[in-house]
Amino acid sequence: MPRISISRESGFSVHNIPFGVFSAPLRGVNEPVCATRIGDFVVDLAQLATSGFFDSAPTFGFSVAKRIFSQSCLNEFMALGRPAWSEARRMLQSALTVVDSSSSADVLEYEHAFPASAVIPVNAVSMHLPSRIGDYTDFYASKEHATNVGIMFRGKENALMPNWLHLPVGYHGRASSVVVSGTNFHRPCGQTKADDAPAPSHTPSRLLDFELEMGFFVGPKTEMGSPLIAREAKDHIFGFVLLNDWSARDIQKWEYVPLGPFGAKNFCTTISPWVVTLEALEPFHVSPPPQDPAVLPYLKERPGAETSFDIKLSVEITTAKGNNKVVSESNLKYLYWTASQQLAHHSVTGCNMQPGDLLGTGTISGPDPSSFGSLLEITWRGEKSIDMGGDEVRKFLQDGDSVTMRGYCQHPDGWRVGFGECTGKVLPARPIPTE
Amino acid sequence: MPRISISRESGFSVHNIPFGVFSAPLRGVNEPVCATRIGDFVVDLAQLATSGFFDSAPTFGFSVAKRIFSQSCLNEFMALGRPAWSEARRMLQSALTVVDSSSSADVLEYEHAFPASAVIPVNAVSMHLPSRIGDYTDFYASKEHATNVGIMFRGKENALMPNWLHLPVGYHGRASSVVVSGTNFHRPCGQTKADDAPAPSHTPSRLLDFELEMGFFVGPKTEMGSPLIAREAKDHIFGFVLLNDWSARDIQKWEYVPLGPFGAKNFCTTISPWVVTLEALEPFHVSPPPQDPAVLPYLKERPGAETSFDIKLSVEITTAKGNNKVVSESNLKYLYWTASQQLAHHSVTGCNMQPGDLLGTGTISGPDPSSFGSLLEITWRGEKSIDMGGDEVRKFLQDGDSVTMRGYCQHPDGWRVGFGECTGKVLPARPIPTE
Ligand SMILES: [Ca+2]
Ligand SMILES: [Ca+2]
Ligand SMILES: [Mg+2]
Ligand SMILES: [Mg+2]
Ligand code: NI
Repeated sequence: MPRISISRESGFSVHNIPFGVFSAPLRGVNEPVCATRIGDFVVDLAQLATSGFFDSAPTFGFSVAKRIFSQSCLNEFMALGRPAWSEARRMLQSALTVVDSSSSADVLEYEHAFPASAVIPVNAVSMHLPSRIGDYTDFYASKEHATNVGIMFRGKENALMPNWLHLPVGYHGRASSVVVSGTNFHRPCGQTKADDAPAPSHTPSRLLDFELEMGFFVGPKTEMGSPLIAREAKDHIFGFVLLNDWSARDIQKWEYVPLGPFGAKNFCTTISPWVVTLEALEPFHVSPPPQDPAVLPYLKERPGAETSFDIKLSVEITTAKGNNKVVSESNLKYLYWTASQQLAHHSVTGCNMQPGDLLGTGTISGPDPSSFGSLLEITWRGEKSIDMGGDEVRKFLQDGDSVTMRGYCQHPDGWRVGFGECTGKVLPARPIPTE
Repeated sequence: MPRISISRESGFSVHNIPFGVFSAPLRGVNEPVCATRIGDFVVDLAQLATSGFFDSAPTFGFSVAKRIFSQSCLNEFMALGRPAWSEARRMLQSALTVVDSSSSADVLEYEHAFPASAVIPVNAVSMHLPSRIGDYTDFYASKEHATNVGIMFRGKENALMPNWLHLPVGYHGRASSVVVSGTNFHRPCGQTKADDAPAPSHTPSRLLDFELEMGFFVGPKTEMGSPLIAREAKDHIFGFVLLNDWSARDIQKWEYVPLGPFGAKNFCTTISPWVVTLEALEPFHVSPPPQDPAVLPYLKERPGAETSFDIKLSVEITTAKGNNKVVSESNLKYLYWTASQQLAHHSVTGCNMQPGDLLGTGTISGPDPSSFGSLLEITWRGEKSIDMGGDEVRKFLQDGDSVTMRGYCQHPDGWRVGFGECTGKVLPARPIPTE
C-alpha cells in the first residue's frame, strides 16, 4: 500500500493540511490547480474532486469541489467560509491513516482515498501564488519594530507616534508585484539623496533590506459600508503565509514623507506558497501582549480567541559564495496588534474586503536584538555588521544574496504545523536609462 | 435612415469615441459588455463585433474583437495597445457620416454600419466600471494643491517637502472600493481625535471632502524589473476618466503619520464611466508648467508630446434640499507632473504595471481660489463657508449632498470631447458597533 513518511521536522504533518496552487507539466498537470501538502508530497485536489473524493461533503459536494479546486487560485474556496474549509480539511485528514509512528517520523497510508497519480513529490512541482490578490495591504503591528524604527528616525522621546497604541497603522501596498517564493528580482533603482547632496540622483538602492512578516488571506467578502468588528473578523481570515516585504531604505527615506512608502516597497513582495488555515494554528494560540491604553470597542477581540499564535520564525541569508547565517529568530506572538484587529481596522471606514486579499502584519521584531525582523534594526542602520563567515560581512543585502524565511509551530506531542520556506534572491540592478 | 443628433454641448461628439462597459437588461443586454458612446446613445461593441463590423480590422479582426468586446471589462482591449485602439476608433468614426451640421448640433447617419439594436439610448443603460482594476494608485501632482495643504499643515516656509519638485509623490490606494459614477456611499466612521481630547473616539467623520482628480488607465503591461521612462510611458496609457477621491479629513489627520492616508480614503473612490483615449485628447495638448529644477532623465517627456491637456473641470454640490452650486472650476493643464511622468515614476523601482490599473493624478487645484479642487482648500480648513443659496452653507459635505464632477475639451471649431459626469451622494453614517 502507498505510504508517506513524514519526518518529525516536517511542517506538513497530518495536523496541517495547508492549501496552495501548483502545476507539474511532467506529470500532466499543465495548468495550475489547487492542492494540499502532506510531508514531501503534493496532493492534487482537482483530481481528487474529479474522482469523487468530495462527493459526500455536506457543505459543498461534488460539483462545487470540482469547480473550485480546478481553478488556478484559491479565491473561490476562500470565499466559501469556515464550514467548507473545515470540512475539506477534516475529509483530507480522515483519508490519511497513521500506520506507524516513531520518534523521528509518522508513516501514513492513503491508498483507498487518493488516486496514486494525485500524489506527486514536491520536487516535481512548481508552486504558484495561492490567490489572485485583488488588494494587498501592509501593517506596522510590532511595537518593538515601530519603536526601533522610531528611535532611529525621530529619537527615543518620539519613537511611537501618538496614534500607534490606538490603532493598527497600515498602508496600501502593491498587489501586482507580490510573487511566490523562489522568484528572484533585480535590485531596484530609484531616486536617492545623500543628506549632504544638493539634489537626488537615480541610482541602484544601496540599502536593500528584508522585512520578516507574515501575511493572511481574506475569506468571505464584506460589502462597502459594512465594517467588521474584531470579534467577527476571525471568520473572514482564511489562513497565514510567510511574507518578505523587501524594502529599499535609501529610496524610502527620500520619498516617504508625507504620503508613505511607495517605490521603496512596490518592486517585490515574496510570500510562501502554502496557506496554513486558522484551524491548523488554533492549537498554538497564545494571548497577545496586553494592550494599554484599552482599545476602542471595534478592536476588542474575544479573550482566549485572539488571532495570536506561537509561530517560530527565522531568517537566513545565503551569499553568492555560499556563506550563510540565521540572522533573526522571532515569533508571530510578539505582535501587539492581531490579525483580527488589523482586518477590523482595515474595514472600519467601510472599505470592502474581497476573498483572496492579502494583509501583511508588518515586520515582526521581538524584544531581543536576535529577534529583530529587518537588517535596518539588526545592524542599527548599518552601524554594526553581521559576520557571515568566510570573511564576508553584511550591513544590507548584496547582489547574489538569498533571503530565506521559515516558520513553524511545535506541538508538545512532537509534530509540527509549518509554513515551509519563503525565499528570494537579489539579482544585480539593471542599467539605468539615460536620455 | 437612423440619425443621431449631437448637441454642440455634448462631450460625446464623433471626435471622442470613448470606451466603457454597460448593461441594459430591458434591451436584452443582461451581462455587461463593452461599448462606445455617440451623443446620447450607447453603441454595443459586442453586438457590432458579432455582426462582423470589425472583420476588416488589420490589427485585430473578427475573433479578437468578438472576444474582447464581449468581456465585462476593457482590460483585454486595453492590453492590445495603441494601434488596436486607434483602429477601433477610426473604424467607428468612419461608420458615422455627418449629414447635417448647424450651430447647435451635428446630425449623423449610421444605418449601414450599425445594427439598429446595437444603438441604445443612454437612459436605458446602466454603466459599470470600465476595467477590473488590479491596482489603484493616487498621486499628488498639483503644485498648487500640495502648496495649499502644506501651508495649512506645516506653515508657508515648509509647504512643499524637499522631494516634491524632484518626483511625483504617490501612494498606493484601494482598488476594491473604486466605484462607477452614480454609486452612493455611507459617510465613513473611524477614529478621530480632537487636538485637546485625551484619546481618540470612534465617530462618523465630520470633515468629509471631495478631491477633484482625473484618473488614467494602464494599457499594455510591463514586466517586474523593467521600468518605463516617461518618453515611453505614453504608449502605456489607454485614456482618462474623472475621479473623485472622497476624503475624511479628520480621520486622515489622526492616522496618516508616518505611513500615509489609509481609512480616510479607502471607503470610496468614484470614477466616470467613459474612458476618453489619449488620441481623442491630443488636439487639446498644452505644454505643462515649466519644471525647475530640471527633472532626472527618466522623467523627461518629449517636448510637445507631454501628456498634458486643456481639460475644463468643474465640481458642483447639490444638497438634499436641492440647492446647488459650482464650487470649483479647474483644469487638468495646471498639473505640475504629467500622467507619463507619474507612470514612469510608478515603475522606476521595477513595479510591474498591468492592463486596467488605475492611476489618479491627485487633486487638481489651479492658481485661483475658484479653481481649488477640495473643500479643505476652498473653505481653508473650514475657516470660510460656501453659500449654497436658500440659507444653506457648507464647510464640508453634509448627509444627502451630491458631488458632481464634469469635464470637457472645447475645440475652436465648436465641438467637444468630454467625460460626462462623475457623481456620488453621501448617505448617513451607519450605527457604530458597541461591545
Ligand atoms: Ca512592511
Ligand atoms: Ca487624492
Ligand atoms: Mg514589498
Ligand atoms: Mg478615495
Ligand atoms: Ni467619463
